[in-house]
Amino acid sequence: MNKNIVESGEDKSLDTQMMMRTLELAGKNASSSYGGGPFGAVVVKDGKVISECGNAVTVNNDPTAHAEVNAIREACKKLGTFDLKGAILYTSCEPCPMCLAAAYWARVSRICFAADRHDAADAGFSDAFIYDEINLPVDKRSIPTEQIKLKESNMPFDTWKENDKKTLY
Amino acid sequence: MNKNIVESGEDKSLDTQMMMRTLELAGKNASSSYGGGPFGAVVVKDGKVISECGNAVTVNNDPTAHAEVNAIREACKKLGTFDLKGAILYTSCEPCPMCLAAAYWARVSRICFAADRHDAADAGFSDAFIYDEINLPVDKRSIPTEQIKLKESNMPFDTWKENDKKTLY
Repeated sequence: MNKNIVESGEDKSLDTQMMMRTLELAGKNASSSYGGGPFGAVVVKDGKVISECGNAVTVNNDPTAHAEVNAIREACKKLGTFDLKGAILYTSCEPCPMCLAAAYWARVSRICFAADRHDAADAGFSDAFIYDEINLPVDKRSIPTEQIKLKESNMPFDTWKENDKKTLY
Repeated sequence: MNKNIVESGEDKSLDTQMMMRTLELAGKNASSSYGGGPFGAVVVKDGKVISECGNAVTVNNDPTAHAEVNAIREACKKLGTFDLKGAILYTSCEPCPMCLAAAYWARVSRICFAADRHDAADAGFSDAFIYDEINLPVDKRSIPTEQIKLKESNMPFDTWKENDKKTLY
C-alpha cells in the first residue's frame, strides 16, 4: 500500500480530520442548496485551521475562485502576510495548475489532497486537460498564444532591478 | 523572423498598442513610488479595454494577485460573467502556470505576452521553476505533496452529479 494513501478508519490523525473537513465543505458546496463547484480547501498552521473555503466560481462570477485559491487568499488576509511558510494546504481534490502554482507562490510547506485530477475529469472538470496544455509549446496550445516582443519588453524588469525600495517576494 | 514576434515601430496595430499599455502599467508598478511587482495585464474585448491591472502581491498581501489574475477577476466582475470567451489577455510577461491556467478557466480566446519566463527568471521570479515542478510526479516535487485517499474522496463529485440545479462551468 502506498504510504501516502491512508484509508478512512485506519487513521484519525490531523491529516484525516482535516481531509474529512475539506470533503464535507466540498460536499456541501456541491449540493443544490449552495450551488458552488464540488471542491473544498482548508489552510492549517500550527495545528489550527486558518481558513476554509469552497469553490465560488459561479456564485462570485470569478473563474479564479477555486477552493484552494480562496483558502490561500483568506489565510493570507487573516495572517497579514503573502507568505504561508509552515502552513499545510488540505484540498478535496488534487490542485489544478492554477491552484498548485498559487500554493507555490504562497510557499505553503505541504499539500494534501483526496481525489485526483482523473476523478475531476470524470466529473466533467478540465484539470487534466490544462495540465496537458501547460506542457505544450506556446504555439501548439488550444488557446492561441503569441509572444509580441517589443524593444520595451524588459523595461519593467530593468525598472524593478533599479528600485532599491522594492519588497521582494 | 517569427511571425508571432512584432518589433516595435513596425506595427501600430491594436496588439502593439495594448502591449505597450501593459508594459507601461508594469513599469509604473515596478517603480519605487508604487511598489508592486514588475508586471501588468490588460483584458480587451471587441476592441475595448475591459480591465487593466498591475501585480499587487505585496501591496495586498495576496500571493495570487498577479497582474493577469487581477485583470481576469476585474473583467469578469465588470461584465458579470465567469466566461471571457471572445476576450484577449495582454500581459507584460509570459503568464506563470497560475495565470495561464486562470486564462484557461476564464476561456479567453487569445493570449499575448511581451517578455518570457526566462526574462522573469533573470529578474528573480520563479515562473520557470514552477513550470518545471508542475511536470514532476507528485512525490518528486519540492513542496511535499501527498494523496490522502479516503473512502469519502469522491462524495463531493457524486453529490455534484446528482445536483440537477447546478450551474455548469
